[in-house]
Amino acid sequence: MQQKTALIMKNDQWIYSKRPSERVSEQNYERRVTELSTALSQNEVLIKAAYISVDPYMRIQQHEIRTYDVPHPLGIVQRAGVVGQVVASENENFVEGDWVLAYSGWQKFAKCHASELRKLNPNDAPVSTALGVLGMPGRTAWFGLMEAGKPRPGETLLVSGAAGAVGSLVAQFGKKAGCKVFGIAGGAEKCRFLTDKLNLDGAIDYREFKTTECLAEEIQRTTGGVDIYFDNVGGMITDAVIPLIKLRARIVICGAISQYDGKLDKPELGPRLLQHMLYQRATIQGILARDYTSRMDEMLAIVAPWVKNKQIVFEETIVEGFDKLPDALNSLFEGKNLGKLLVKV
Amino acid sequence: MQQKTALIMKNDQWIYSKRPSERVSEQNYERRVTELSTALSQNEVLIKAAYISVDPYMRIQQHEIRTYDVPHPLGIVQRAGVVGQVVASENENFVEGDWVLAYSGWQKFAKCHASELRKLNPNDAPVSTALGVLGMPGRTAWFGLMEAGKPRPGETLLVSGAAGAVGSLVAQFGKKAGCKVFGIAGGAEKCRFLTDKLNLDGAIDYREFKTTECLAEEIQRTTGGVDIYFDNVGGMITDAVIPLIKLRARIVICGAISQYDGKLDKPELGPRLLQHMLYQRATIQGILARDYTSRMDEMLAIVAPWVKNKQIVFEETIVEGFDKLPDALNSLFEGKNLGKLLVKV
Repeated sequence: MQQKTALIMKNDQWIYSKRPSERVSEQNYERRVTELSTALSQNEVLIKAAYISVDPYMRIQQHEIRTYDVPHPLGIVQRAGVVGQVVASENENFVEGDWVLAYSGWQKFAKCHASELRKLNPNDAPVSTALGVLGMPGRTAWFGLMEAGKPRPGETLLVSGAAGAVGSLVAQFGKKAGCKVFGIAGGAEKCRFLTDKLNLDGAIDYREFKTTECLAEEIQRTTGGVDIYFDNVGGMITDAVIPLIKLRARIVICGAISQYDGKLDKPELGPRLLQHMLYQRATIQGILARDYTSRMDEMLAIVAPWVKNKQIVFEETIVEGFDKLPDALNSLFEGKNLGKLLVKV
Repeated sequence: MQQKTALIMKNDQWIYSKRPSERVSEQNYERRVTELSTALSQNEVLIKAAYISVDPYMRIQQHEIRTYDVPHPLGIVQRAGVVGQVVASENENFVEGDWVLAYSGWQKFAKCHASELRKLNPNDAPVSTALGVLGMPGRTAWFGLMEAGKPRPGETLLVSGAAGAVGSLVAQFGKKAGCKVFGIAGGAEKCRFLTDKLNLDGAIDYREFKTTECLAEEIQRTTGGVDIYFDNVGGMITDAVIPLIKLRARIVICGAISQYDGKLDKPELGPRLLQHMLYQRATIQGILARDYTSRMDEMLAIVAPWVKNKQIVFEETIVEGFDKLPDALNSLFEGKNLGKLLVKV
């Protein structure tokens, strides 16, 4: 083996330093330039980030309380999925220039163990899809809908956050499963995206409705009742939907983005609606991407060909600049992005 | 066939005449004495009520909104399960003196079609059990726990309304399934019943706690977390329990008695807690006795021997007097009864 000379490089990192009480911003991070030796241990791989992910779940983990995980520790790099390229490798499966998916967080460079990396073939699909339709959001959408939602042809599927990374995929998977699919989103542009680009059967702009009652009336008028409600948003939208469920409806709780800016610590008040579960003998099921990690290939076998053959729309909103990471994360809670939000380094 | 002479008898009925806005009382009924001819059509059976049931579900059906059923019509006899004796019969399977279960409502006499009746053997079990442990409440408890709760040995089952008709059975079925079982009930007497008579692993008197937080602390301290929550009560008790569920917990919504006095029409506010379903990948499932009607024999095959061999406690609170029916129904919402509440005619 040829001896390599270790260099000392500069790394650029966003350190999660202070828990947000409401919205997340740059105030919750410390930008740090550190030194990184290129010396690698056996099976270690050095990667350079190209696309860094911002996802709503990150804000859940920033809470002080235990949620589905212990809270994200302070003083370490913000955890995140990353698509990058191999710069150096001490593992035979990875060579310089390879594209990989890593979970290396908000930093420009990272050393990863080879076992933590998934190699990506840029000829199969744009590499950024490993953070979207062919990655965690895709897995969440696929298994959340298919396993918990159990769609049957002819049923009515309603998706909240339908123009988002997960929602836009759930909606399309629902169409492929033979459902009538309706989406709820914020703003006319997103609603046009749902009907015109995703070909959904209808879209509802929740921002046009001041009260839960008015929103509920519109949802009922548009959908005629709901067999499957795939919820990414929670709050008032879910309050409007629950009384409209049909017999043996399935409600999939995938997210509650309306509650992430502090309301997980101190719950908001909303109407008590669990009696509707009894009226309709319905179920509510919470799902999490990590429960299906081991079944990733099962999803890819079905969805990757759809991506390749352009049978599915996988919209991306790409923010340019490593500097923009905290802002980009915050923008998720303002509902500004269409599809998957990514930061290009 | 011998010709029978038809007589005209007096019948005594409670007519449901006015929807309650809060608690139900005599104000919501009209007492009516009507005439009833003993002449019977083919397959008709005349029965005389002995035990008339009052159940929480009746109050759900009294709401003006559609719940799990169309609202109980005004101007007809209050619907209810009844155990009675055959007075006259035009069906070969029933003879005078037979004990039967009917759904003939709050009236002293009723004509039923033979197909609506279930014959009871008073040597197998007290006939009143057909309205309790071997009837609708037993079926609800059995299938609700076994099908939706899916108990496994060693798991922790928490039951609200644990001293009631359904809850007291769920708790015992849970013990038989090998669970650690805890009950929540109102008052020291009920809690003693749970620990001393039902041999539960612990009991919590919710009335001793002024806030949801204090109640939650006590539940956590007592149970150590909940795998299965069988809910008959809803409201503040359920608010306290939901954040304490364990991974892949099952919440069974069997009832929400705390909400029945008007809060189904105008929902109360409570904390938003659906995010916990996501944290724990848990399910909430609503169940209803009627979904398991066709499987009644399956339940009876298991539970009837337990009743016969005194392996199960089936407490009854019996109110004497047809006059007392509205009061008895209302008393369910005051939490006064232990086990199944019946009115003896």
